[in-house]
Amino acid sequence: MTSQQTRHDGRAPSDLREVRITRNWLDHAEGSVLIEFGRTRVLCAASFTEGVPRWLKGKGTGWVTSEYEMLPRSTNTRSDRESRKGKVGGRTHEISRLIGRALRAVIDTKALGENTIVVDCDVLQADGGTRTASITGAYVALVDAIEDARAKGLIAKDAAPLVDSIAAVSVGVVGGQPVLDLDYPEDSTADTDMNVVMTGSGRYVEVQGTAEGADAAFDRDRLNALLDLAAAGCADLTSAQQQALAEAPRERSR
Amino acid sequence: MTSQQTRHDGRAPSDLREVRITRNWLDHAEGSVLIEFGRTRVLCAASFTEGVPRWLKGKGTGWVTSEYEMLPRSTNTRSDRESRKGKVGGRTHEISRLIGRALRAVIDTKALGENTIVVDCDVLQADGGTRTASITGAYVALVDAIEDARAKGLIAKDAAPLVDSIAAVSVGVVGGQPVLDLDYPEDSTADTDMNVVMTGSGRYVEVQGTAEGADAAFDRDRLNALLDLAAAGCADLTSAQQQALAEAPRERSR
Amino acid sequence: MTSQQTRHDGRAPSDLREVRITRNWLDHAEGSVLIEFGRTRVLCAASFTEGVPRWLKGKGTGWVTSEYEMLPRSTNTRSDRESRKGKVGGRTHEISRLIGRALRAVIDTKALGENTIVVDCDVLQADGGTRTASITGAYVALVDAIEDARAKGLIAKDAAPLVDSIAAVSVGVVGGQPVLDLDYPEDSTADTDMNVVMTGSGRYVEVQGTAEGADAAFDRDRLNALLDLAAAGCADLTSAQQQALAEAPRERSR
Amino acid sequence: MTSQQTRHDGRAPSDLREVRITRNWLDHAEGSVLIEFGRTRVLCAASFTEGVPRWLKGKGTGWVTSEYEMLPRSTNTRSDRESRKGKVGGRTHEISRLIGRALRAVIDTKALGENTIVVDCDVLQADGGTRTASITGAYVALVDAIEDARAKGLIAKDAAPLVDSIAAVSVGVVGGQPVLDLDYPEDSTADTDMNVVMTGSGRYVEVQGTAEGADAAFDRDRLNALLDLAAAGCADLTSAQQQALAEAPRERSR
Amino acid sequence: MTSQQTRHDGRAPSDLREVRITRNWLDHAEGSVLIEFGRTRVLCAASFTEGVPRWLKGKGTGWVTSEYEMLPRSTNTRSDRESRKGKVGGRTHEISRLIGRALRAVIDTKALGENTIVVDCDVLQADGGTRTASITGAYVALVDAIEDARAKGLIAKDAAPLVDSIAAVSVGVVGGQPVLDLDYPEDSTADTDMNVVMTGSGRYVEVQGTAEGADAAFDRDRLNALLDLAAAGCADLTSAQQQALAEAPRERSR
Amino acid sequence: MTSQQTRHDGRAPSDLREVRITRNWLDHAEGSVLIEFGRTRVLCAASFTEGVPRWLKGKGTGWVTSEYEMLPRSTNTRSDRESRKGKVGGRTHEISRLIGRALRAVIDTKALGENTIVVDCDVLQADGGTRTASITGAYVALVDAIEDARAKGLIAKDAAPLVDSIAAVSVGVVGGQPVLDLDYPEDSTADTDMNVVMTGSGRYVEVQGTAEGADAAFDRDRLNALLDLAAAGCADLTSAQQQALAEAPRERSR
Repeated sequence: MTSQQTRHDGRAPSDLREVRITRNWLDHAEGSVLIEFGRTRVLCAASFTEGVPRWLKGKGTGWVTSEYEMLPRSTNTRSDRESRKGKVGGRTHEISRLIGRALRAVIDTKALGENTIVVDCDVLQADGGTRTASITGAYVALVDAIEDARAKGLIAKDAAPLVDSIAAVSVGVVGGQPVLDLDYPEDSTADTDMNVVMTGSGRYVEVQGTAEGADAAFDRDRLNALLDLAAAGCADLTSAQQQALAEAPRERSR
Repeated sequence: MTSQQTRHDGRAPSDLREVRITRNWLDHAEGSVLIEFGRTRVLCAASFTEGVPRWLKGKGTGWVTSEYEMLPRSTNTRSDRESRKGKVGGRTHEISRLIGRALRAVIDTKALGENTIVVDCDVLQADGGTRTASITGAYVALVDAIEDARAKGLIAKDAAPLVDSIAAVSVGVVGGQPVLDLDYPEDSTADTDMNVVMTGSGRYVEVQGTAEGADAAFDRDRLNALLDLAAAGCADLTSAQQQALAEAPRERSR
Repeated sequence: MTSQQTRHDGRAPSDLREVRITRNWLDHAEGSVLIEFGRTRVLCAASFTEGVPRWLKGKGTGWVTSEYEMLPRSTNTRSDRESRKGKVGGRTHEISRLIGRALRAVIDTKALGENTIVVDCDVLQADGGTRTASITGAYVALVDAIEDARAKGLIAKDAAPLVDSIAAVSVGVVGGQPVLDLDYPEDSTADTDMNVVMTGSGRYVEVQGTAEGADAAFDRDRLNALLDLAAAGCADLTSAQQQALAEAPRERSR
Repeated sequence: MTSQQTRHDGRAPSDLREVRITRNWLDHAEGSVLIEFGRTRVLCAASFTEGVPRWLKGKGTGWVTSEYEMLPRSTNTRSDRESRKGKVGGRTHEISRLIGRALRAVIDTKALGENTIVVDCDVLQADGGTRTASITGAYVALVDAIEDARAKGLIAKDAAPLVDSIAAVSVGVVGGQPVLDLDYPEDSTADTDMNVVMTGSGRYVEVQGTAEGADAAFDRDRLNALLDLAAAGCADLTSAQQQALAEAPRERSR
Repeated sequence: MTSQQTRHDGRAPSDLREVRITRNWLDHAEGSVLIEFGRTRVLCAASFTEGVPRWLKGKGTGWVTSEYEMLPRSTNTRSDRESRKGKVGGRTHEISRLIGRALRAVIDTKALGENTIVVDCDVLQADGGTRTASITGAYVALVDAIEDARAKGLIAKDAAPLVDSIAAVSVGVVGGQPVLDLDYPEDSTADTDMNVVMTGSGRYVEVQGTAEGADAAFDRDRLNALLDLAAAGCADLTSAQQQALAEAPRERSR
Repeated sequence: MTSQQTRHDGRAPSDLREVRITRNWLDHAEGSVLIEFGRTRVLCAASFTEGVPRWLKGKGTGWVTSEYEMLPRSTNTRSDRESRKGKVGGRTHEISRLIGRALRAVIDTKALGENTIVVDCDVLQADGGTRTASITGAYVALVDAIEDARAKGLIAKDAAPLVDSIAAVSVGVVGGQPVLDLDYPEDSTADTDMNVVMTGSGRYVEVQGTAEGADAAFDRDRLNALLDLAAAGCADLTSAQQQALAEAPRERSR
């Protein structure tokens, strides 16, 4: 994709922000990752526990789920805590469910055995793309939690619960131009916003495109351009994941 | 699209279920529609009120939003009421927000003035496609509520708050075959499920495709086939809306 | 009862509104009725499930209960959903409990066996008398759910869980005159409002009379006049129930 | 009324339990009463505040309402607190509303001016009849709160917000015999249970009769016998209220 | 401690208010005490039940806990009920936990066997020191509940679950002078406020000192003076408890 | 203080864990600190907003408050989120209130003007002492937020809202020996646990000592030994705060 126009932070339309993945950021969690997409910073903690929710008991399959939440001052102005409001907002539910589905798309729950992995994605700082950073980081934490369980003998040595890898990125139309990995200033002015979740093998798991407000509806060509950008972005994120997993992580102190 | 295989209810892959739109099903609401997609039956009630939420006051623009909910026995087995559980589930929130965004995609909020329209979509009977039926019916109720407001002088005679029409349909892959407008038996066995919201002019407002579970991720060709099916389905629903709106509705008794 | 004065809708003081009872309005529910008292329209869905709440287990008796709720735009102006407010209001609780008690007054829970029937009464449109319409319709849905269970062999062929029928009507004093089956305009101006629930055999199950506001307290003669009106009204509703049950209902599509 | 049979505590069918009314049991509340019907013990505290709820502002009328609640160990076995359960039960709401309506039946809200009186009825010990004791005690607390407001010049010297007095009693059928003022052992075995709220002038404000369970429905003669018992009981309670109000209460220490 | 200055109610700095302890104030509860510290009046009800919470099952130890709450009009101006607000406030939680810890400090849970005692402390009237009065009264109710269980054979004749007694008092700095057992007018103007919970044998269980607002921080000498005052006050309360327990309580009517 | 015994991590009884204070850890917050007491890691974010809560309006004084929460996997095993449980637990409330009081003890709210500072303390990793780390870090974030407001002209150049500094530390008795700054393994086996909050000038703001369980009550000598340890620890923390504030923090990217 050629880009005549540069973006407010100097990126080309098809550039990701700088991606940093720090494994074992926490000492207690079986897998944990601090992932950064530019200034967006999400702490992903994967907790492995034996047993499954009641509705799955005795079926010989495991369960993977996720909970997403933003710290009150992750955003530019402080937001009230959902715990104090006494209810979880629609957006929070929506994103938690999305992350869980994305992870389950690459998990063979039979191979996991009757075990549960919950991946908590807590946004420490938000600058656009928190859900896509969450999915991308959660995958790495999930890998580490599974390896930890294997090392402890909680799953079989030769079990292969992960059938593929998973990553996610946002794309959108800003100032008439399709761009990759929107930060908050871009996101808040975009006509169209799409989150795309893809496997390492290049197939789609989620495509969520939204035209924001009147007259922002988009045609098929525009949709295709966005899907192209997203595929390239997800491939780059898959490489970043592989590289992070190839390195030895810091030792957890326990 | 050719279809060698027929579906469990005899439809061709590209067939909608029978669509019925009954306007003014209620006497109190400014606009109301009982919409049926086969056995799926949703009551859409549009309430017009003067004034806007606090965060919009004094900006000269209106607001359109929606609330979706299922009656406890709309489903095959009874579900607990969200009011009794004391919290609204993630799915309910997610769909309510989707309907609201879809409607706002065809509303010029400036032309609406400082007025609010809430469209309640209550599912009386569920057989798959409740969110797409809700959007399709809600649009018709919205048109009637706006005309009612115009007749009462609450918006200007020549104001044109509606910039396009909006309809929605589900598509999915069942038994390896892409099909349109899934009913519940199809939906519960589909690998891939996509909801597409399109304007009457054929542009996309929402594309939400999901691969359910491991190994269901789909490739670009499959995605394209589903998008084709959806475009044809939305066009048919747009016709059904136009036809319903062309007829004189029953008189409301007040 | 003689009536010199006619009412705002032309009825005599002792006239019911037009009563319509549509059986099997839903396809999934074991029994379902759309009942209309004039413009008041309530959907009653009876769900039969095997088993009983924990506190009844092992006692060999069944359980019948009810949940009542109003759709947000059933009323003249939109009301907030109780699910969004996060709590069920006092009035909703009160009426749910009333309907449950009324149904249990004609149920031999021993004969029902360890089974539970929940009757959901959702008000689609409200124009006064929603609780009395709910009870009257719920009884018919209950009969159908019991017959459905009998046909499926879930209760014995010769079991007779229903010991009587049950119906309900409102009476009140409007403009100084006792009248039957108040609609909303009457109800909102009535000094005294009484809901009476009676069995088909003419005995009382509930008598709930209320003087609204200062100086509306009523004497024994007035109370007697209202009880007379109610007895006649309940007898008429009992006939309407019998007639509805005598006809073959529409086939449920499943 | 003749009574061949005595009751488990030696009372005749038409006997009230011993009634004790202690005014100014609290020091802070504008009016407060500890009322005892035998072992049932309710603390009624009337709080007078200037101003009215928003929906009444500027109409020149006042508001009287009530909140009822049971202490967790008021009952024979401990019940969970509604505050900890996070929701108020249906029975609690129902009784709170009943007490509020009963008090408003003898209040001229115009004469009260734009002031609000909340009467809290907290059951310290429960042995049947808590709602009727609450109403009977709340009236006395209300009188004292109004006099206190008059003394402070918050309502006019010659304003007469109270148009009558109000009292309540339960009646029911126990072992086939109609009896007055049921205690808990009687109440839990009664077929029929009726709460009657009457003014000092002998008119009805609420009549709430309920047949509990199958085959407990009652005929008109039974209803009349119960209404007779209740009228006599309310008259006795009215005397007890008058006597309590005639005496000088203990001095509040402030 | 010498005191040049008397307090607004005539007490010397080291004087408690008048303490009254009435045992068996309730008929149902296994132990109950109405405790008064001057105008502060708390009803403490101890409920003994067989069994323990799930997390303690099978460990052979019992459990003692407490719930504290204020009646809405216990205070000078009415407060909203926590049950209606749908959540329990921080202060209520904090005090409930404090009372529970204080009681457990003198309970040998092994000797209690697998039984639970919940002590409900409901503030009927508040004039400062409600948490310390609650602890002091709760101990007496606890003793009675344990004796009641012993009499019924629910705990062994020779079991000694109580290893000491427990009492509590507040101290603070008012007008520059350390004083004991603050009432509300003192408490609301105090710079420093400290609650001290001590065993009958004179050891500390809780020391909770707080400087309220800027520049109220206190030095070590001040802290020592307050601790001295508190020790003397707790010793006096221990005597009051012993004296109350030495007398025969009123007979419970059951 | 001499120490014959070393602790499980090699520290002397009077040693703090390693303390690290990283300022401006976040880009959006007016002040933010990542504070670490050994493995305990808390993110403190101070949000400055113009205006005050309603109950303070027009009084010319500001407000400082705090909210504390633990991430679900900050702990050794995952805890449920309070937002999902729909209510904030007692411990969370208690600590939030403690932090707020501690900060207000060094704030001259008049000098702050009608502005509000909320300090969010989110525990990213918990290993004992989360509340004391929160207070110690929150103070530094508060200083930065005030300087930021001064730089923006939101408070006067010469205003001095901070009258002192504030720090906190835990002390306790482990294995019979008083020790400073307990980590989780120590905390979970301590008989006595005390949190002490002190100003930089060495005065007490909070003293919260608790004996955990039967027979853990402590005498005055023990209390004095703990207070000595705490005073030394708070002095060391005050130095660490001063040192952190003396250095130039990283530039916030905005």
